[in-house]
Amino acid sequence: MVKKYLDKLSLADALNKLKNNFKNLRTETEKIKTSKAEGRVTVNGVKARRSAPDYYASAMDGIAVKAQKTEGASERNPIQLEIGSDAVPVDTGDPIPEQFNAVIKIEEVNQIDKNTYSIEKGVPAWNHIRSIGESAVKGNLLVTAAHRLNDYDLGALLEAGVTEIEVYKKPQVTIIPTGDELISADKTPKKGELVEFNSQMVRAALRKWGAEVKITEIIPDQKDLIEKTFTEAVKESEMVIILSGSSAGRGDYTIDILKNRGEILFHGVNIMPGKPLIAAKAAAKPIFGLPGYPLSAWLDNQLFIRELIYLLQGVQAPAFNQIEAEVKRKVPSDIGLEEFLRVNLITDAEDQYIAVPLKRGSSAMESIVKADGIMRIAENKEGLHPGDRGPVILLKEKNKIKDNLLLIGSHDLSLDLIRNEVYKRNYNFDLKLQTVGSMAGLTALRRGESNLAGAHLLDPETGEYNMSYLKRFFKGQKLVLLNLVHREQGLYLKPGNPKKIKNINDLIKDDINYINRQRGAGTRVLFDYLLTQNEIDPAKITGYEKDEFTHIAAAAAVGRGSADAALGIRAAAEVMKVDFLPLVEEKYDLIFREEVLDDHRIQNLIGLINKEEIKNEIEKLGGYKCRDTGKIEILDL
Amino acid sequence: MVKKYLDKLSLADALNKLKNNFKNLRTETEKIKTSKAEGRVTVNGVKARRSAPDYYASAMDGIAVKAQKTEGASERNPIQLEIGSDAVPVDTGDPIPEQFNAVIKIEEVNQIDKNTYSIEKGVPAWNHIRSIGESAVKGNLLVTAAHRLNDYDLGALLEAGVTEIEVYKKPQVTIIPTGDELISADKTPKKGELVEFNSQMVRAALRKWGAEVKITEIIPDQKDLIEKTFTEAVKESEMVIILSGSSAGRGDYTIDILKNRGEILFHGVNIMPGKPLIAAKAAAKPIFGLPGYPLSAWLDNQLFIRELIYLLQGVQAPAFNQIEAEVKRKVPSDIGLEEFLRVNLITDAEDQYIAVPLKRGSSAMESIVKADGIMRIAENKEGLHPGDRGPVILLKEKNKIKDNLLLIGSHDLSLDLIRNEVYKRNYNFDLKLQTVGSMAGLTALRRGESNLAGAHLLDPETGEYNMSYLKRFFKGQKLVLLNLVHREQGLYLKPGNPKKIKNINDLIKDDINYINRQRGAGTRVLFDYLLTQNEIDPAKITGYEKDEFTHIAAAAAVGRGSADAALGIRAAAEVMKVDFLPLVEEKYDLIFREEVLDDHRIQNLIGLINKEEIKNEIEKLGGYKCRDTGKIEILDL
Repeated sequence: MVKKYLDKLSLADALNKLKNNFKNLRTETEKIKTSKAEGRVTVNGVKARRSAPDYYASAMDGIAVKAQKTEGASERNPIQLEIGSDAVPVDTGDPIPEQFNAVIKIEEVNQIDKNTYSIEKGVPAWNHIRSIGESAVKGNLLVTAAHRLNDYDLGALLEAGVTEIEVYKKPQVTIIPTGDELISADKTPKKGELVEFNSQMVRAALRKWGAEVKITEIIPDQKDLIEKTFTEAVKESEMVIILSGSSAGRGDYTIDILKNRGEILFHGVNIMPGKPLIAAKAAAKPIFGLPGYPLSAWLDNQLFIRELIYLLQGVQAPAFNQIEAEVKRKVPSDIGLEEFLRVNLITDAEDQYIAVPLKRGSSAMESIVKADGIMRIAENKEGLHPGDRGPVILLKEKNKIKDNLLLIGSHDLSLDLIRNEVYKRNYNFDLKLQTVGSMAGLTALRRGESNLAGAHLLDPETGEYNMSYLKRFFKGQKLVLLNLVHREQGLYLKPGNPKKIKNINDLIKDDINYINRQRGAGTRVLFDYLLTQNEIDPAKITGYEKDEFTHIAAAAAVGRGSADAALGIRAAAEVMKVDFLPLVEEKYDLIFREEVLDDHRIQNLIGLINKEEIKNEIEKLGGYKCRDTGKIEILDL
Repeated sequence: MVKKYLDKLSLADALNKLKNNFKNLRTETEKIKTSKAEGRVTVNGVKARRSAPDYYASAMDGIAVKAQKTEGASERNPIQLEIGSDAVPVDTGDPIPEQFNAVIKIEEVNQIDKNTYSIEKGVPAWNHIRSIGESAVKGNLLVTAAHRLNDYDLGALLEAGVTEIEVYKKPQVTIIPTGDELISADKTPKKGELVEFNSQMVRAALRKWGAEVKITEIIPDQKDLIEKTFTEAVKESEMVIILSGSSAGRGDYTIDILKNRGEILFHGVNIMPGKPLIAAKAAAKPIFGLPGYPLSAWLDNQLFIRELIYLLQGVQAPAFNQIEAEVKRKVPSDIGLEEFLRVNLITDAEDQYIAVPLKRGSSAMESIVKADGIMRIAENKEGLHPGDRGPVILLKEKNKIKDNLLLIGSHDLSLDLIRNEVYKRNYNFDLKLQTVGSMAGLTALRRGESNLAGAHLLDPETGEYNMSYLKRFFKGQKLVLLNLVHREQGLYLKPGNPKKIKNINDLIKDDINYINRQRGAGTRVLFDYLLTQNEIDPAKITGYEKDEFTHIAAAAAVGRGSADAALGIRAAAEVMKVDFLPLVEEKYDLIFREEVLDDHRIQNLIGLINKEEIKNEIEKLGGYKCRDTGKIEILDL
């Protein structure tokens, strides 16, 4: 049963292996109407079939004249031209009658009467006359072979009489999702079932790259069924992708089938996520077995399949949009694996990019949705140190990244609401949120990794929120404290409170399973404070060491029965439909550096949270009081 | 009849006027399947409808265990686990049975017999167990309102149970081409007819930006017909574009109709090309009258319509991909007009962009097909001076631009052939060609505007080609001279030679109309040399002052009857089907700096033109001899 991935290829070696095997891979070609060819790739160089214009034509609306007749005209000595013999009106594009050799713009012509124009300026021969072939010259190469056609290429081709054009057909790809535990993404999963959405995600990308995609039924883990489906797919497509067929622990049907039916090129690449990829060749066609983890599947699709989809169409895939960014913290990474880390990006005062890693885990789809880019940590690097720089593949537009604000700190539901309002109101920036806890939020702000922090840190000595921590973290600096909300903290309990928990002292009972928040979370600080106040030894609380990262996750754990109680804000209890035992009211502030107070985005944000309608919306989430929301305090620490 | 454009708005003012009038412009919304939503834009923020996973799940293929039971295991002291009670096999994603709290990877497990696993390493509690909500947490905002959905967004949404999503409908646009002289692009034009391809070009772009486009029949210049078509179009679309309806010289039907049916926002913007644009509002919908010149129509579409197409879908248009580039020559430009100049780009030794303008003229479609970018010269600038820098909107990928070679010089048909082969053979660079004449080619190489020059300059003193010019232009420098071809030069004559031209002396006859090549063209130098040799006074040749820029254009002028004779290479005579009277054989060389001789692209190029099959192809073009093709001479000047 013990299996390892067959190969430990570097990314570059794996890509080269693909390139060498498939360098001449192309789809068949077809002749289509040029007007429908945007985005398609030419098979051959295409020459202009006619010149444009193919006669001498007026380049202006005006009058055609003999240049010699206009010589010497001036404001003082206007020259009169007889309509018909000396000049005729022409519109742009009109052929110039044989006897004329220049055009005067309509703006420079006065018509005196029915038969006479008057001009105040002479023109040289060939003035405003378009030469034959000015726009296109018959026989000239307009576009080369292997050229992806733009809108203006179509214009140039049609102008030059090329109404049909030979292009590569759209590649046909079949995706085969496999797995007993999978159900279609439009169904609701029971425990142990997983919705199958990788096929939809991969299809969306393939279509964007120009392919036509067929997704088969979900095939259960039965070798004969997979083999049958695969055999048909190879016949009717230019590429086959088997989903969830690459894990080492499975029955390995995919590998067996591919060995039987073709040739395995590699199984396993030294990258993370995306390691257990299978690449094979059957009937000279590329076959892939993608990992089941969605982020692994996504990355392998981007790194390997994308190249071949373009190649099938006769062009190289466009380069990734990649920048260099600095990290401000230690980023561990395994040697021997090229890591692709989701990061947020902000720019510093010198307009240099700072990368802030999001949480890892190849299944964390939320992290890629939130990410601005994917940082690459080379195979030979044991992680990065503060100040190190590395390449980042951008997922968002550069300008947008620069325009956006990054808030790192404690999780609060009102932030989602505010973020959505920022979008809706077309403020032209995004308020990106990384929820890592209050303390980690302050650390990030201090390191220059964020524009704003969000914190609700209780000082057990003073009973005050945030101030003592800020004094410690930002001594000698100027900050702005912007109150976001006051909010109720309390215990999440199973609906109906079956274990009859009445106060924090009940948590030490033997049959009570607690679930904690991570170290550095304001809610954990609060919990420890409440324990101290009530003289409770944490060691007596079952589950004190198991932690979750957000209020929602903690409430979810209680709702699902994995725990009996957890501390958190009321709003999450309402979302997760668990009972809530209120314990205290706490203060949640946003913190940023004083020098950005006048930044238009910060000003937009302050304006927004000061709006009554927004405060009302926040209070509707449950457990919120907005009595100080939007209040500003400038701190000279 | 004298008309000026109504407005002289700056680009910024015009864009602002549009923005202010249409800032709340959106299409209707529709609910569609999430799996089909790639590229569409959300109407509202979307929250996760379920957590994923929503149970504790294995993160690995392996075995589920009690962490406490694994404590202390080592290579020397392996621990045995009873299958069933101490451990059970789990696949990735499987739920963890209640009694277990950790997973050991399959690679770290030895199965000793049917009932027993052995492990050599302990694991902590929660090892390789995915928390509830690790990938998505119910209630969390996944994507905001006004967000354009990516492939991975679809994955995240489907994973979190969002199977349907509300998005903005694709904007419906109607394009109305107007003009008596226009015929459909798939027909062959007679003299005075123009093929109408702007509608196809504009549609291709609009579709790419997300719109659905209907093109009406071509409407003749009759007010009632245009008005009727327009009225229907406004009813059934979110935007109407009238083509060729914006010229000042026309009957101005478009303006009249728009005044009647709505409100003119502006007519005329201070940009070139693209000046005579009409923007209007009818039934609260944006209406555009685009100029007839294809490049003007193209640019106005990019600058004005693009923004609104995106806005209709609820998002801002992506920023243009813009870089800064230096010019090495004087670039004149009118004050009071923002000019958009087609340029090629190369990078210098410091990786800085150099912009090299292509020929102007708003109808020159070939120039935009060849361009790498569009250089913007601000309204308040009277052109650029050598060393000035300015913004360039990229039309090609940055990497490709850097990879490409730019050849500036004399026109030769074998270059088109070679360029096409470079593409076909996947050398991964483009050989871009600017045909400006031999002398201008050498000047460009000297200025650092090109990678290669192409020249066939005869020294009248020595009868030798190129050398004396190179000595003059590149004194003290090292160059490489790479022979491209020897080729026949001669006179293009009308088919059948109706004027019985037998030699160059016949060109002075009264009834012979000659057409010349531009100053600095090698062919013009040759012509002057032949005149001197034959003691002919240029003033005696009718048409000596009228010039064309390429062999093909010169041959075309003869073929079309605008001239009786022109000097040029045989290959162009064959393309244009005119008679050819051979006069001399000349040498055409490629020239580049010695330091780039080892550049892989230059090496590819040398390799290519040394191939026998390529030489054969070139000779087939007619009038070429490849006896020295590919020969290299290193010059220390």
